[in-house]
Amino acid sequence: MGILDFLRASRSQNSASAAKERLQIVVTHERIRRNAPDYLPMLQRELVEVIRKYVDIDQDQVSVNLEREGDYGVLELNIVLPDLPDRPQA
Amino acid sequence: MGILDFLRASRSQNSASAAKERLQIVVTHERIRRNAPDYLPMLQRELVEVIRKYVDIDQDQVSVNLEREGDYGVLELNIVLPDLPDRPQA
Repeated sequence: MGILDFLRASRSQNSASAAKERLQIVVTHERIRRNAPDYLPMLQRELVEVIRKYVDIDQDQVSVNLEREGDYGVLELNIVLPDLPDRPQA
Repeated sequence: MGILDFLRASRSQNSASAAKERLQIVVTHERIRRNAPDYLPMLQRELVEVIRKYVDIDQDQVSVNLEREGDYGVLELNIVLPDLPDRPQA
């Protein structure tokens, strides 16, 4: 199963959610040594800033989850994008 | 299954790879309208620049995959990090 199938499967389990435009960023850091630097917490704000260059993001619409297990660190950002006005077709 | 289990499962299928420090970034954009802007291709370089603030990245060690299916766009960056010198324990 590819990651696209996985994401679609998780989304369909959550079918009660309204049709909204969404952006999800998942950063996985696999460390081979425990003393390697852990910069995932610092990345979080910078990633939101990069996205903000392209779309307006309401800070209330960003949910962040940081998980660690063994050598893995996973930073997950879920962003619900604001409704855009329809653009005229060219 | 959480995303962490999924990632670990995909990694273990690839057990021939050497023990290296890795960073994976997956950006999923779920669009509800086809005419919404598609900025995933532009994000790619900016995300690498953000990571580069924290670790040296060799451009040869970045692999990029951009996939589209229906309303989903998925940008996947896989980065093998350079070996770091061991840092003295405090």
